[in-house]
Amino acid sequence: MNARRKVYVAGSRPDIQVPFAEVDLAGDNPPVRLYDTAGPGSEPEVGLPPLRGPWIAERGDVAPSRGAGTPLAAANGKPVTQLAYARAGVVTPEMEFVAVREGMDPEVVREEIATGRAVLPANINHPEIEPMIIGKRFLVKVNANIGTSAVTSSIAEEVDKMSWATKWGADTVMDLSTGKRIHETRESIVRNSPVPIGTVPIYQALEKVDGDPTKLSWELYRDTVIEQAEQGVDYMTVHAGVLLRYVPLAVGRVTGIVSRGGSIMAAWCLAHHQESFLYTHFAELCEILAKYDVTFSLGDGLRPGSIADANDEAQLAELKTLGELTTVAWDHGVQVMIEGPGHVPMHKIKENVDLQQDWCHEAPFYTLGPLTTDVAPAYDHITSAIGAAMIGMFGTAMLCYVTPKEHLGLPDRDDVKAGVIAYKIAAHAADLAKGHPGAQAWDDALSKARFEFRWEDQFNLSLDPDTARAYHDATLPAEPAKTA
Amino acid sequence: MNARRKVYVAGSRPDIQVPFAEVDLAGDNPPVRLYDTAGPGSEPEVGLPPLRGPWIAERGDVAPSRGAGTPLAAANGKPVTQLAYARAGVVTPEMEFVAVREGMDPEVVREEIATGRAVLPANINHPEIEPMIIGKRFLVKVNANIGTSAVTSSIAEEVDKMSWATKWGADTVMDLSTGKRIHETRESIVRNSPVPIGTVPIYQALEKVDGDPTKLSWELYRDTVIEQAEQGVDYMTVHAGVLLRYVPLAVGRVTGIVSRGGSIMAAWCLAHHQESFLYTHFAELCEILAKYDVTFSLGDGLRPGSIADANDEAQLAELKTLGELTTVAWDHGVQVMIEGPGHVPMHKIKENVDLQQDWCHEAPFYTLGPLTTDVAPAYDHITSAIGAAMIGMFGTAMLCYVTPKEHLGLPDRDDVKAGVIAYKIAAHAADLAKGHPGAQAWDDALSKARFEFRWEDQFNLSLDPDTARAYHDATLPAEPAKTA
Repeated sequence: MNARRKVYVAGSRPDIQVPFAEVDLAGDNPPVRLYDTAGPGSEPEVGLPPLRGPWIAERGDVAPSRGAGTPLAAANGKPVTQLAYARAGVVTPEMEFVAVREGMDPEVVREEIATGRAVLPANINHPEIEPMIIGKRFLVKVNANIGTSAVTSSIAEEVDKMSWATKWGADTVMDLSTGKRIHETRESIVRNSPVPIGTVPIYQALEKVDGDPTKLSWELYRDTVIEQAEQGVDYMTVHAGVLLRYVPLAVGRVTGIVSRGGSIMAAWCLAHHQESFLYTHFAELCEILAKYDVTFSLGDGLRPGSIADANDEAQLAELKTLGELTTVAWDHGVQVMIEGPGHVPMHKIKENVDLQQDWCHEAPFYTLGPLTTDVAPAYDHITSAIGAAMIGMFGTAMLCYVTPKEHLGLPDRDDVKAGVIAYKIAAHAADLAKGHPGAQAWDDALSKARFEFRWEDQFNLSLDPDTARAYHDATLPAEPAKTA
Repeated sequence: MNARRKVYVAGSRPDIQVPFAEVDLAGDNPPVRLYDTAGPGSEPEVGLPPLRGPWIAERGDVAPSRGAGTPLAAANGKPVTQLAYARAGVVTPEMEFVAVREGMDPEVVREEIATGRAVLPANINHPEIEPMIIGKRFLVKVNANIGTSAVTSSIAEEVDKMSWATKWGADTVMDLSTGKRIHETRESIVRNSPVPIGTVPIYQALEKVDGDPTKLSWELYRDTVIEQAEQGVDYMTVHAGVLLRYVPLAVGRVTGIVSRGGSIMAAWCLAHHQESFLYTHFAELCEILAKYDVTFSLGDGLRPGSIADANDEAQLAELKTLGELTTVAWDHGVQVMIEGPGHVPMHKIKENVDLQQDWCHEAPFYTLGPLTTDVAPAYDHITSAIGAAMIGMFGTAMLCYVTPKEHLGLPDRDDVKAGVIAYKIAAHAADLAKGHPGAQAWDDALSKARFEFRWEDQFNLSLDPDTARAYHDATLPAEPAKTA
């Protein structure tokens, strides 16, 4: 529909061009600008243009990590992270970009990053992204998980799912591919993604040892992290808080350890009867991530997998350790966010955010759901949208979507859309509840259109114009009913 | 699936037989009993057996209202309501039935009804129902709206939707039919419904004056109420709180008056410049409802239709009046619940319940949603499931579902199911958050089955076994993957 189109708002320099979806309305009603994550669109074989290329180059802090060309890395120990620049008082073009995008003062963006309350995930080897920010003072963000598996799907399908997810509003995408061809899949996704890409490097490391977690080692893991950092992965889930002494805490649970990364590391710790190499080598890991400005997403390997296990000793013990690791990462100038549950009944949700904010020094919280009941497989986008909206209201900065296939199978294209839409609803409901400036203008414009029977305006303003229009037409297909 | 079957638990007398869905599990795992609303199943042409017939007859308080046979009415001013019996210290068979159903002490049931904190909607002319209770100490209930319209659908379709809604867990059904044949439609629905039926009598009254609200009168309305009470309608929405002086309060709103009943009464008040006949004749209305044990559902004709209008002066003014009317109804021995919004952002939800409980003397709250954002038409079962779960947690007793077609068209069979499922999720999440005794056993049984890869047990315990099984099979169709 022409009534909904992409516009760009310029920043202080001509190469800062911030995208919005602008919706024209009938009569005297002013157009409405909506946050837009879809990117400029790419040819999968070509990839997106390197929007950030000049910004990265002009800072003069990077050099080819292998003699010439890409990939890049920090030159001679120079700090390259957005955190380092924010602390130094510099508003980077990336920061200005997100300030325009959020309708916030650039100085607020810089300060939130400098204090660690927000992250701007932007690997220097991922120049294609349109910068975005994750922090409690900003719009609540949504992540969509995709990825090939040994059983199903192809690289082209996963690139298509990534584009599809961003079309519907995904702010970041995690590539959780397993099986063969992990590297090539990720390469295609990163080169075509307008949003930051996250990964869980331990998954690829495990493929390299044929799926036997006891054969993992720090060296193998480290090399995998470098491989992915050089490709341009913007944030990495690291389950460094699953300590040997915490593993027994999960024994009495209804659902034990349900995080894949958590299970892998618990198996390694138990087999070797040693402390997790992710924990013992954490400072080295920080040095690596700092060289590429990869953001930590400290994983909750002991997150609850059921209502019964919510907020238990295992979960909270790990959370405290994640708080310690946050400080270590910050000391190395590395950006950090913290992952959270999982399955949590409504009355225990606020406690999660409050403890995380307290123990992790206000680092951004990034939660999976939480699912507020276990009884509705096939509808866990809904069981968890309830929890996601609430945890967002209480201060969670990014929500990892759950699709209708959760617990049952791998999400297809329709599931990806259903998951993203449910989570955009949760995120926007949270923005309203937090009183984010400007959030309610969207609701007001749509409600006014509804009250005035401006059907086309209502459709064009909808989170999903296609489905709203189709549902309306199913009952009242006549054109006059829409324009009356 | 044979693993999920209907069982009946007997009360203190052989004709109290309370239905449950029992799920057999593999191995040593004990079977799980789930609350069941599906009823015994009926032949639409025959109707359901009159389960409550003997209970009503043996109380000796009713007589044919027209000389002989049915319909019945209170005999010689005798009190027939469950409220009157509860106050007199009598545990009726209906009360014992719900006590078994909820796993509560019958004396608690009696006391909650006696104080007005709960209602047991059970018209003496609707002997077919399996009694249920609506109150904050009990399981959160879900209502599904159905109904023919002038544009689409038939009586048979609506009866089928009613049965379909109760199959998926609707605790009550409201028949909101418009157009011709309202009486016959309702007759078919009431005679076949195992759950209480609610209506909005003003809709039928309006049909009798060809849709012109200014032609309505107390007499016409009164006769419509009696007609419906004699058919067996268990609760009626009455918008008696839309007072003449409140109508101007809605003028400055983004979405004015969106309740159909509210709009009708506002139009009447303005046209006649008189106080609403529902308000001025409220005591007479109480006398009528008392004769049949019809429960009031005091409607919120000024509920907000958008985020912008939530918790405004118009809404709260009406709520206060509903509190006054509650006392009047109770003085006449009539059961009362109070309807609530609508569209409310998350941070304003708790205030709704707190004010309603305070001003309406703890009468049960019965809310539509609320929708927590306006921007997602086609997904309002989700925008509102978020609000419904929260408002349930805060003490709302029954949630009126919203389907994906809300604002867009009339719900078909698939929409009815989607709405009921979303609301059963919200209600159960609220039960967990409220710590309802026994609620979590369902989650625990399913999660244990999940952790032990007992797929068939997981499907059979699911809120929607069919869809859970289908989603699983779509990815991993092989039988061994389910029983491994």
